[in-house]
Amino acid sequence: LVDGRQSAHALAVQRGVGRLMAGFGFSVVTELVLASGRRADVTALGPKGEIWIVEIKSSVEDFRTDRKWPDYRDYCDRLFFATHTQVPLDIFPEEAGLILADSFGAEVMREAPDHRLSSAARKAVTLRFAHAAARRFHGLIDPAARDGLAI
Amino acid sequence: LVDGRQSAHALAVQRGVGRLMAGFGFSVVTELVLASGRRADVTALGPKGEIWIVEIKSSVEDFRTDRKWPDYRDYCDRLFFATHTQVPLDIFPEEAGLILADSFGAEVMREAPDHRLSSAARKAVTLRFAHAAARRFHGLIDPAARDGLAI
Repeated sequence: LVDGRQSAHALAVQRGVGRLMAGFGFSVVTELVLASGRRADVTALGPKGEIWIVEIKSSVEDFRTDRKWPDYRDYCDRLFFATHTQVPLDIFPEEAGLILADSFGAEVMREAPDHRLSSAARKAVTLRFAHAAARRFHGLIDPAARDGLAI
Repeated sequence: LVDGRQSAHALAVQRGVGRLMAGFGFSVVTELVLASGRRADVTALGPKGEIWIVEIKSSVEDFRTDRKWPDYRDYCDRLFFATHTQVPLDIFPEEAGLILADSFGAEVMREAPDHRLSSAARKAVTLRFAHAAARRFHGLIDPAARDGLAI
């Protein structure tokens, strides 16, 4: 049994993707809970409010068992998969972008189609992103404040 | 010389204000740089996207020397001052809210007038808030990512 979220490979890919996004001027929140209840592995917010979601797949199994990935498109302008060199890249669909990562960095192998969010959807995802990021930071700075925070 | 941002009193008030806001369901970012270039001591984001700014004044001097405080109203729906018990509360203007805080918590002594932001202004402040929070957290989790981050 592979837990895609917690495996060492997944964490390495997450770190590399975070650095890539930072290099693009995007800021990131991991494991953002969306309105659907699903968690997005990496949500990236751009300088102009662009929202990209990056789903990390650390094994062939991990990708094959996820039949609901198209749903993520309702919450972002661009959707990417991210993986590492031990996973064959041809399993990933053309309808999404593709990022190859290790723990030091990452590279975009295929650009993601652009499907712009509605203004209302963008506002909702941005608000979730902002709250999640601020609460996590606040929880580190003042753990006691967590009592009042739904992290 | 009193540095309002760095004094022990100011830090205690900041912590108490953060807990108060968390209790209200708001998340907070400290020292947010606004479009004007000024820093807001505490910016709080509400469940529905409300934006409140809390300016911390840790001495009479600290308040008297700030002649530009009304400018903060351009960046929030409500503006509060926050202080501690060793500062007389009657120096603060009625046109802003007032919070009395210590390092354990805080209390609203006077509600703040509501001056709703325009949609464009709200979007801009929310985006700054989201980027600042996410970048600070990311910078703690992966300091090397900071190279690509304008914190």
